[in-house]
Amino acid sequence: MQTMNKKYDIIIIGGGPAGLTAGLYTARAKQSSLLIDKGMVGGMITKADQVDNYPGFPDGISGFELGELMQRQATKYSLKIITAEVTAIELEQGQKMVKTTEGNFIAKAVIIASGSERQKLGVPGEKESTGKGVSYCATCDAPFFSGQAVAVVGGGDAAIDEAMHLTKFASKVTVLHRRNRLRATPVLQERAFAEPKIEFRWNTVVEAIEGKDFVERLRLRQVITSGKSILEVAGVFISIGLKPDTDYLKGVLPLDATGHIITNEKMETEIAGIFAAGDIRAGSIRQAIAAAGDGATAAFYAKEFIGD
Amino acid sequence: MQTMNKKYDIIIIGGGPAGLTAGLYTARAKQSSLLIDKGMVGGMITKADQVDNYPGFPDGISGFELGELMQRQATKYSLKIITAEVTAIELEQGQKMVKTTEGNFIAKAVIIASGSERQKLGVPGEKESTGKGVSYCATCDAPFFSGQAVAVVGGGDAAIDEAMHLTKFASKVTVLHRRNRLRATPVLQERAFAEPKIEFRWNTVVEAIEGKDFVERLRLRQVITSGKSILEVAGVFISIGLKPDTDYLKGVLPLDATGHIITNEKMETEIAGIFAAGDIRAGSIRQAIAAAGDGATAAFYAKEFIGD
Repeated sequence: MQTMNKKYDIIIIGGGPAGLTAGLYTARAKQSSLLIDKGMVGGMITKADQVDNYPGFPDGISGFELGELMQRQATKYSLKIITAEVTAIELEQGQKMVKTTEGNFIAKAVIIASGSERQKLGVPGEKESTGKGVSYCATCDAPFFSGQAVAVVGGGDAAIDEAMHLTKFASKVTVLHRRNRLRATPVLQERAFAEPKIEFRWNTVVEAIEGKDFVERLRLRQVITSGKSILEVAGVFISIGLKPDTDYLKGVLPLDATGHIITNEKMETEIAGIFAAGDIRAGSIRQAIAAAGDGATAAFYAKEFIGD
Repeated sequence: MQTMNKKYDIIIIGGGPAGLTAGLYTARAKQSSLLIDKGMVGGMITKADQVDNYPGFPDGISGFELGELMQRQATKYSLKIITAEVTAIELEQGQKMVKTTEGNFIAKAVIIASGSERQKLGVPGEKESTGKGVSYCATCDAPFFSGQAVAVVGGGDAAIDEAMHLTKFASKVTVLHRRNRLRATPVLQERAFAEPKIEFRWNTVVEAIEGKDFVERLRLRQVITSGKSILEVAGVFISIGLKPDTDYLKGVLPLDATGHIITNEKMETEIAGIFAAGDIRAGSIRQAIAAAGDGATAAFYAKEFIGD
């Protein structure tokens, strides 16, 4: 109670579609609302080149633009946004204390919507070459590889999206997938198979990323034959999944095996007054529209919890 | 199996934001998809004059336009839409038979997203005067009451939205609410209290709607004093809640006390392969964004159920 501005009705952790939608709803409902994001507001969606499946945009929209629209809409009401990293959530006499790198904040209810981070390959050279040919975001980095050969690691929607985007810049795109078929949506697969610049290497994993100053080659292994090979590329885009940043919640909230937060259909966690929304939630389908829906639902039930 | 075109991977019942989003996802995933709606596609949202809380539209959008955008987006892929009323869902050798007024259809999975209908007051004169001064949709009917006095029955967001909209046309808007305070969002309440054309009558219910050819007056009762009074109006807009059309599901699916379908956070009902999404779901917050999110989630898990 020393500093009045550190108390809020609702604190939202994370500024992607889930957090921004939660903030839109809580601020529009005249609840004092703080949104804490550790980086750039807008979330993972901002890295999507083209979003065709967010309802309301039949001609598609860039993820960056969608993120900006959402932020503008949420901040039209009195949503306060700060940049900080959350280090802990503690329960304090019925209220919640959110500890961050920029100080501690108290709220009646907390909505955790901080998403999932890109999964790393964990091979030699990956860390050293990040930003020097190793990338996790084609939308951000593709233009750097104009006229050069690149690889994409993964077989899901995100990986194929990245590969398709890269064909606009690179001379050739080799998709490396550890299985013998893609997980990606059939319509995406079809497009990728029809794209002459894309080549597929099935049952193939990366063992090492090599190069002097920048990436020059990948050491590959065929998982069935164990045959080794070298692929000469100037860049490698890794798109093999997401890891939620929930280490600080261990012992506080029930998490699933991959570290995602378990909720019910009201976005309630096991602790009254703590909600989760979006990609960080177990069972989330990791789509912007579902995350936004989660955010609205979490805001609704957080308001009900507060009894406002 | 007689008529091949009557079998689908997925049948979606209802064409509002939940159903159209489910259809967008299933059709985009190249699953054969049939959407059945009993009236105009777009759902309840199409009746909203201005939607300010659907993320992605910071300057707001009319519900009608939003519905049209969603429909255009879903039908870009091969979603088939028909007009029919669903009368029963039956389980048949692991598949689902959807019986309708336009014939029977079979699917591997069904997503029920047929929303909720407007609740009726159930007082004398209501039915007789519907369309002759009794309305459930100010967006549709407000222009007919230009320069005249009207009443709105209800105290939630929808009722106050309707009242605000009516002030653009009517000479005076009396809000009749059976309680002594509104349920509506504070920001909406504030606007309504500041609006000189709106008057509130608390703890007041309508006992009868009277008039010769058109509505002329309401018979009111103050619930605390039991005092009776007459309010002269040319129109009455009833906005007291929603009733889901789930009578045909009694005994098939678990419903809550108000007839809404019970699901988990994956939109699964108790019957494998039958999903529910949007306003028809118990616990739904009855907002377009949440309904759309539900639709995407239901489509995802329906696809997983089919094993496609």
